[in-house]
Amino acid sequence: MILDGKIVAQSVYEEIKAEISTLSKKPKLWVILVWNNPSSLRYIKQKQKWAEYVGIEFELFAFEENVSEKVLLEKVHLLNTDTNISGYIVQLPLPKHINEKNIIRSIAPEKDVDGFHPENQWKIVIWDTSGLAPCTPAGMMELLKYYNIEVSGKNIVIIGRSNIVGKPIANLLINASATVTICNSKTQNIEFYTKNADIIITAMGKPHFLTVEKIHPKSIILDVWFTVIDEKIYGDSDFENIVKNGNAITPVPGWVWALTVSCLMKNTLKAFKRIN
Amino acid sequence: MILDGKIVAQSVYEEIKAEISTLSKKPKLWVILVWNNPSSLRYIKQKQKWAEYVGIEFELFAFEENVSEKVLLEKVHLLNTDTNISGYIVQLPLPKHINEKNIIRSIAPEKDVDGFHPENQWKIVIWDTSGLAPCTPAGMMELLKYYNIEVSGKNIVIIGRSNIVGKPIANLLINASATVTICNSKTQNIEFYTKNADIIITAMGKPHFLTVEKIHPKSIILDVWFTVIDEKIYGDSDFENIVKNGNAITPVPGWVWALTVSCLMKNTLKAFKRIN
Repeated sequence: MILDGKIVAQSVYEEIKAEISTLSKKPKLWVILVWNNPSSLRYIKQKQKWAEYVGIEFELFAFEENVSEKVLLEKVHLLNTDTNISGYIVQLPLPKHINEKNIIRSIAPEKDVDGFHPENQWKIVIWDTSGLAPCTPAGMMELLKYYNIEVSGKNIVIIGRSNIVGKPIANLLINASATVTICNSKTQNIEFYTKNADIIITAMGKPHFLTVEKIHPKSIILDVWFTVIDEKIYGDSDFENIVKNGNAITPVPGWVWALTVSCLMKNTLKAFKRIN
Repeated sequence: MILDGKIVAQSVYEEIKAEISTLSKKPKLWVILVWNNPSSLRYIKQKQKWAEYVGIEFELFAFEENVSEKVLLEKVHLLNTDTNISGYIVQLPLPKHINEKNIIRSIAPEKDVDGFHPENQWKIVIWDTSGLAPCTPAGMMELLKYYNIEVSGKNIVIIGRSNIVGKPIANLLINASATVTICNSKTQNIEFYTKNADIIITAMGKPHFLTVEKIHPKSIILDVWFTVIDEKIYGDSDFENIVKNGNAITPVPGWVWALTVSCLMKNTLKAFKRIN
């Protein structure tokens, strides 16, 4: 069975759209973009497309690549103090002469709809739902919810301990009462863990590492990371054989990004409702 | 074998003391105390004792129990902006009419020697060692280091997912390349996890839950939580029989608190060195 993140994202969008249609005022998303990276522009266009689809207005503040950190911080400060602005993002990555951490920690946490500010990141660790959750792990939780995949009491194995995927999703699942094991490249006898898992989340960047032999026939696989080799995209799992084996699995790539953007819109609406 | 946290704490103190003896100026710890809780006073006295032992000066700002949140926040702001003050703590718990979270997130992270501010808590998740680590999990890492207990590649099982113990120590151990499993009250077949663990950390509050039958003869046990029943103190482990079984284990209570205070002094020195 294929777990289709794009269908899940669409259902998140329909939910947001329905709610926004009942509001007297439209939410809005403000975006700070530095023209330094062609992929940033592509990402922003997709975000704009989905914002408009659900009824969220979109405004871009664009800066030249040589913009100073000081100027960006001033803009961030302006957006923080402007009471009309409910939520905004700073599109990453930023040029190398700018310290991304400084920028992120300067964003007012209650307007940080990407959920990148340390306060928002820490809130998902301590299960404080008042914050704006980081969109990528939040999106993964949407997928599990959509497919009614129970996590409480389940044995969930996460392979990979990155700060943007492995650790935040681990903490969200711990809060959802799963028994969570976080493996890494130093893990000995990884099959001991994967063969006993109800759910396996791979976020390593090792093409086709997870084979049928390493999993239980009933395991559900969320394949998060992807690797590009000779312009071909590979997930961490041997997708085709795992599907043939009858396991439920997400196809790589696309599903994580689709869900990430849908959760950005969810956060934008949440931030808007806080002040309206 | 008994893992003695008090010996470890003493060794941390000797290390700090030796370093301070080489400094031309003495570090100092400032403390905000609200007179609402007899145990707060006891804790503060112990902190003062160890501060003086290692050569850290100690200054108390005491407030009556009915102090307003506003007045406390003003004091916090003063300490934040006073460039002579390198590190301070607000002794918890605070009276119920004061929002502890508001106070904690108002402390300047670089002066927050308890490591309670969200920024410091988040830094241990992402393995950013520039912060001031929360003292309790940091103290547990000191114990592992002192006894040369290798964690990289090891199977470590944590029972309990509290925000002050289970989750921070899990994240520290993940960063130290351990394979970490976090169990909770919903975990099914917990012996499957504990019997295969190299190290077990219990932080549940279930007296003598962990018996010899549930563990491997070579498992190392860190018993963190304690429960008081009829004025007797119980850990989560059947300490006596586990010792007889030949496992290494920490005795309850005392070791966690001893190490927590030693790491408070370590943070105080670190914060002092930042500005001196």
